[in-house]
Amino acid sequence: MPRVRVTKRVDFAAGHRLGNPSFGEEENRRIFGGCHNLHGHNYELEVTVEGEVDPETGYVIDLGRLKELLGEIVLEDVDHVNLSADVEWMEGINPTAENLVVQIWKRLFGSLDGTRLVSVKLWESARNIAEYRGE
Amino acid sequence: MPRVRVTKRVDFAAGHRLGNPSFGEEENRRIFGGCHNLHGHNYELEVTVEGEVDPETGYVIDLGRLKELLGEIVLEDVDHVNLSADVEWMEGINPTAENLVVQIWKRLFGSLDGTRLVSVKLWESARNIAEYRGE
Amino acid sequence: MPRVRVTKRVDFAAGHRLGNPSFGEEENRRIFGGCHNLHGHNYELEVTVEGEVDPETGYVIDLGRLKELLGEIVLEDVDHVNLSADVEWMEGINPTAENLVVQIWKRLFGSLDGTRLVSVKLWESARNIAEYRGE
Amino acid sequence: MPRVRVTKRVDFAAGHRLGNPSFGEEENRRIFGGCHNLHGHNYELEVTVEGEVDPETGYVIDLGRLKELLGEIVLEDVDHVNLSADVEWMEGINPTAENLVVQIWKRLFGSLDGTRLVSVKLWESARNIAEYRGE
Amino acid sequence: MPRVRVTKRVDFAAGHRLGNPSFGEEENRRIFGGCHNLHGHNYELEVTVEGEVDPETGYVIDLGRLKELLGEIVLEDVDHVNLSADVEWMEGINPTAENLVVQIWKRLFGSLDGTRLVSVKLWESARNIAEYRGE
Amino acid sequence: MPRVRVTKRVDFAAGHRLGNPSFGEEENRRIFGGCHNLHGHNYELEVTVEGEVDPETGYVIDLGRLKELLGEIVLEDVDHVNLSADVEWMEGINPTAENLVVQIWKRLFGSLDGTRLVSVKLWESARNIAEYRGE
Repeated sequence: MPRVRVTKRVDFAAGHRLGNPSFGEEENRRIFGGCHNLHGHNYELEVTVEGEVDPETGYVIDLGRLKELLGEIVLEDVDHVNLSADVEWMEGINPTAENLVVQIWKRLFGSLDGTRLVSVKLWESARNIAEYRGE
Repeated sequence: MPRVRVTKRVDFAAGHRLGNPSFGEEENRRIFGGCHNLHGHNYELEVTVEGEVDPETGYVIDLGRLKELLGEIVLEDVDHVNLSADVEWMEGINPTAENLVVQIWKRLFGSLDGTRLVSVKLWESARNIAEYRGE
Repeated sequence: MPRVRVTKRVDFAAGHRLGNPSFGEEENRRIFGGCHNLHGHNYELEVTVEGEVDPETGYVIDLGRLKELLGEIVLEDVDHVNLSADVEWMEGINPTAENLVVQIWKRLFGSLDGTRLVSVKLWESARNIAEYRGE
Repeated sequence: MPRVRVTKRVDFAAGHRLGNPSFGEEENRRIFGGCHNLHGHNYELEVTVEGEVDPETGYVIDLGRLKELLGEIVLEDVDHVNLSADVEWMEGINPTAENLVVQIWKRLFGSLDGTRLVSVKLWESARNIAEYRGE
Repeated sequence: MPRVRVTKRVDFAAGHRLGNPSFGEEENRRIFGGCHNLHGHNYELEVTVEGEVDPETGYVIDLGRLKELLGEIVLEDVDHVNLSADVEWMEGINPTAENLVVQIWKRLFGSLDGTRLVSVKLWESARNIAEYRGE
Repeated sequence: MPRVRVTKRVDFAAGHRLGNPSFGEEENRRIFGGCHNLHGHNYELEVTVEGEVDPETGYVIDLGRLKELLGEIVLEDVDHVNLSADVEWMEGINPTAENLVVQIWKRLFGSLDGTRLVSVKLWESARNIAEYRGE
């Protein structure tokens, strides 16, 4: 049976400010620049899973179902919130794109109806992108 | 001489929360829903001006110059900040896309090297857009 | 009070085939080419309304509300259907982009919470667009 | 000699309806929802091949040639048709994005002027994507 | 009969260098900066026409026909050429986006099968745009 | 420590003409067609690097720093120039997308602050793409 990858792209709007509480204000400003201010983004998130194509349905996973799972496991927590304050599973973690893809991976891994999680890719903007593949 | 419109598109990332301080929390939640939470966007801003094409340069206005003006007059104030707290000319104004285009128009009007301002158009997301044409 | 335009962009996926039942097959083929075959598109629809900015809310109309109205009045009927067979208000009308924008205008006109309808614009593809402004 | 990947992106507009004839109507409706109705999409297809860069031309393969091959082998059959009825090599196959990428791979494999086929990736919409890599 | 606007979007790739031969090198460099070097763009061109919807076909103009006309009248001359040297109707004209839209308008005006030309809009890049409306 | 990939997308506008000086004019015309004319593109370049996420900053590499490096090492040389004449490190090399990604890889390799270079991907247009992964 052929193994196919399917990708669902979703988006969310969130605020954040980058910083490390153990650094002083000056150090945070030097390292994170304007990103140390509270600001925000329209994030685009692509989650790719792999599996055999079900010969009965022609699906690896119904993308409507995948959207539902992403909604429950990720988007409900991160859409229209401040990532630096409001998300339980980001507490104590600097909300860079890198840290976000790793945490989102951890939340999704093993919860996508038996498919194999391949990639969690996040566009903070059209020009800044992070991807985690479980390595 | 032909009158041509030229448009510069720029972007900025900002946080905001919608609300009216004279409403109670419940009323703000009812009207603004998730937008009453602090969140953020990658805003795309298009500013269109009109003028005669200069026969010497072939320009209505050098778009590099227009970008510089937008940077000084608008972007320096709104990029990587919280629109609900950090922008002097948005103080006391609910930072909806509608209010933003009107305030940006007021700031730009008369300051764009003699061109006629035609439109200030703002994408809060790819699906939510506001435009002010000075009417 | 400033009058601002707000635009909601939505999308739907539909099938259609172009043709005129009063033409013969050969004539339909000559005029409509491959479009006389049943095929389909991801349509993008932008609806623009204009109104005064409400000083209490900063909205012309809540774009969530506009989305809801577009859903009820248009999308429920045209998403995931065959425009050449399944839409009551397109019966007997060739589903070109031109005819679609006029019919969508007629359905929306007067039903958008007191705002003035300015434009109904439809992308059949990224390169083929029709717009009706009520003229 | 460096091995480079080149990708050609093409598009086509097609109708389809998802379903399994061995399921009853109710089952098809439960599994495929609105996708069991005849509808359609603007599909975007990216085909990636790999090979050594020809030192004489600087090409892995002329992308104009690759476009020509994709036209003859794939697009002529799938553009402006109903994928659920009109495509010989999709007969008896539910036209999901997953099944389409596998069938397109089979058609292209071995026919692209000696290059190695790496990926067939299909956007059914900007948010629903399938990819086959021959695994 | 409703009057509808239809838009065809096409693209071309061209080189150009901005400058005024009556200026010296230093002046050209001061005014045009890097644009005084030979460089190039993927231009996107949108041409909008207006007319009554033909009750027999549902078209203002067949967009395939409009594409054919744009090909013959504009694209054949400007695609894969140097706009500063190879285009007869740009001779002696600095190939700014402003001058291009005016010259393209002149070429198209009166030649689009009886439709009314509304707008010629040119994206030199996603962020630099010029539009001429015949004013 | 998780290893994450981060990607910076940048763009540049450049002219080029494809050809091999050892071929005659007729042969160059036959092989390269319109691409043998001087023309140009808006190139989009994505550079992907991989590394462990720094636990102090949450960064693999600050994308502002990566942008700075791409500017110094690549963009300063290729933006607003003629790739067939003005770039020292493309001398004697036909400026196809394939050759460009290989040369850009060579320039970037080992110079990106200790991160591992994963991919150099170049869009000559939205439909023509080359990628080099160091193989």
